[in-house]
Amino acid sequence: MKKLESQMRQLAEKAMYASKILATVDRKTKNRVLLTIAQQLKKNWKQIESANQKDLVFARGNQLSGAMIDRLTLNRDRIFKMADAVIEVAKLADPINRTLASWLRPNGLKISKISVPLGVILIIYESRPNVTSECASLCLKSNNAVILRGGKEAFYSNQAIAKIYRSALKRAGLPDDSVIFVQTVDRKAIDALLKLNTSINLVIPRGGESLIKRVASRSRIPVVKHDKGVCHVYVDKAADLQKALAIAFNAKCQRTGVCNAMETLLVHQAIAKKFLPPYADLLRKADCEIRGDQAVRRLIPDAKMAGEADWYAEYLDKILAIRVVKNIDEAIRHIQKYGSAHTDAVVTQDKRAAARFTSLVDSSSVMVNASTRFSDGNEFGFGAEIGISTEKIHARGPMGLEGLTSYKYIVQGNGQIRK
Amino acid sequence: MKKLESQMRQLAEKAMYASKILATVDRKTKNRVLLTIAQQLKKNWKQIESANQKDLVFARGNQLSGAMIDRLTLNRDRIFKMADAVIEVAKLADPINRTLASWLRPNGLKISKISVPLGVILIIYESRPNVTSECASLCLKSNNAVILRGGKEAFYSNQAIAKIYRSALKRAGLPDDSVIFVQTVDRKAIDALLKLNTSINLVIPRGGESLIKRVASRSRIPVVKHDKGVCHVYVDKAADLQKALAIAFNAKCQRTGVCNAMETLLVHQAIAKKFLPPYADLLRKADCEIRGDQAVRRLIPDAKMAGEADWYAEYLDKILAIRVVKNIDEAIRHIQKYGSAHTDAVVTQDKRAAARFTSLVDSSSVMVNASTRFSDGNEFGFGAEIGISTEKIHARGPMGLEGLTSYKYIVQGNGQIRK
Repeated sequence: MKKLESQMRQLAEKAMYASKILATVDRKTKNRVLLTIAQQLKKNWKQIESANQKDLVFARGNQLSGAMIDRLTLNRDRIFKMADAVIEVAKLADPINRTLASWLRPNGLKISKISVPLGVILIIYESRPNVTSECASLCLKSNNAVILRGGKEAFYSNQAIAKIYRSALKRAGLPDDSVIFVQTVDRKAIDALLKLNTSINLVIPRGGESLIKRVASRSRIPVVKHDKGVCHVYVDKAADLQKALAIAFNAKCQRTGVCNAMETLLVHQAIAKKFLPPYADLLRKADCEIRGDQAVRRLIPDAKMAGEADWYAEYLDKILAIRVVKNIDEAIRHIQKYGSAHTDAVVTQDKRAAARFTSLVDSSSVMVNASTRFSDGNEFGFGAEIGISTEKIHARGPMGLEGLTSYKYIVQGNGQIRK
Repeated sequence: MKKLESQMRQLAEKAMYASKILATVDRKTKNRVLLTIAQQLKKNWKQIESANQKDLVFARGNQLSGAMIDRLTLNRDRIFKMADAVIEVAKLADPINRTLASWLRPNGLKISKISVPLGVILIIYESRPNVTSECASLCLKSNNAVILRGGKEAFYSNQAIAKIYRSALKRAGLPDDSVIFVQTVDRKAIDALLKLNTSINLVIPRGGESLIKRVASRSRIPVVKHDKGVCHVYVDKAADLQKALAIAFNAKCQRTGVCNAMETLLVHQAIAKKFLPPYADLLRKADCEIRGDQAVRRLIPDAKMAGEADWYAEYLDKILAIRVVKNIDEAIRHIQKYGSAHTDAVVTQDKRAAARFTSLVDSSSVMVNASTRFSDGNEFGFGAEIGISTEKIHARGPMGLEGLTSYKYIVQGNGQIRK
């Protein structure tokens, strides 16, 4: 245990020293390294694939589900896509050294607020090995060193991908410890890393609820985390019926296992009779189970009875809770009480109702006449997504490269002293 | 203990419910309440003064130092100044409901990034009772509910000030639990509050190093903290001598007990002989002790020998460590190793040297030809200062009202669904 702790400390300190050098690397150099990495990923796809084969042998041995094995699998096509994603990151605007604001003080001091890297970022994640490349490329693009702690299922794949990053960095004359892959699957390594708040600046856990809870409760380092997504669509009495049907169906069924999928639908009582029966038809065709309150069950006889637990539920599945509300304020109160402040949508043609909803619903993304599924870094145009933060501190909602930056103030004077 | 924990939980939940109502209060209403508070502070100055008298009786009984008692003391003049500061806060630009960015996506979605309050802020502070009013007014201005936990020395003064805030809120029809003063001096109350990360959004400790360490190590809630200020001035070989003398003297001696005062001076060897003797004269006149390396002691014979511990020291006193360096890179390495990334300054007429310094020194404020003492919310023109953050997450450096805000994305569509 002591040995593991000191190994993790050494590793974090290596990353910290690397980060100080990496912080000053210019845009052209880092983009050139990213392009080399993309090239090397493609060139070495067979090596990555055979590392992945080792992981798959274990996965089958451990009887992982078919879906899990699919997420874990790499092949030529997927590795080339991974490499192309790195090229896309190279093309993104540089998030570092941007002048975020600048102003002149009456005493002649010129103050500029300049974006800088955070330093060292620890990413703790689960099965998908592409996360290794995704996170490493985004950290490199934002001049941050990264410590990668992937799941044991993808150990060999992650290791092979990280190795390509490290050798490309080294060949470019940059510190290879800018990308460190944790070479142990011992869970205690995570606990040890989470204490190192003098060398690691931010932790991003990516994975299921239990991983995130574990990290958040043990970390001495700031965590940007992604909690539950209990997302709502509220169909107002002044909704356009066709838009409401399309949005509510898309929010639930376009993809069900994602955090920005709708889990509860709220319908104004004045439109319920017109809206719910045709909507239920759409859900039935998509094999989606309906759980409703009494008013819903009068209109959708085959709906199951929803209980209190359903309003809190993040199903991540083909199940939808539906509730009929008296008015917009009841919908807002429902969202305030049961929601997770992730993404909530209103469908209405009434501008005042829309304004009331966007003002009173304090979620990271509030949609008017659009599907909750749009709360996503790529859909927002960020070019890349680190994750969707449910924090209110530092970064909130879909988080692009900006979330991996801090800033400093540069003050230019000509001899000013304070009186 | 159980009872105290449940009391704190109830109190935090009251603040959370208040914060949801407070979040929607408009600019005019909150400014009107702030002006009423200022008026009431003035009108009730005698009540506040007599509450303060109670604190002073205890302070004298506990033999607090003269400086401590002075910091604790309130009188008509100080209470009126406190009230005037509230009027200044009312006049500040509204930090909430600002459009921070907005853009149109190719699919027609219009995305706006809007500033919102954080929710509930917990302030844990020490002796000065003005902090109560300062923090409560800034939280109110930013639509945040606040839980105030002051030091026991100022208990009655803080209580009297908080009471005026609460009654003004109540009379305006706003929840008085927007400002909650913790009515117990039991230290365990702090530990209990620091666990309540579902109802409190941010903790700001204001006080000495031990308070801040205690809070940071126990909190389950994000902390914006202010660590040490080991600030440097580096006098480059290309420095203007007169400016260098003025800046280095101002940075050390204008006020010594503050975080942005210089603690270590670094001097390029090529200018040391010209600079150090006249500078030592200035320090001697100001009764400031000098601790230097060998090169310094050759030029300032009465300087004491500096040891390794001096380079790490935050004296907050009339003591200065001085080191002669071979070149700018040695100065930068010294700052990277021993500094606390708070505020560091370079004095030079050489633009390339200045650029190298501002690029490689990753401190929250980096000054060129200006005193470190300018790293301050008011000097930066923020109108108010919550504190100076030494974090890289959320807020860094001098922190104005913006540090008390988060944001949400409002997405306006006309029926968009995700493909």
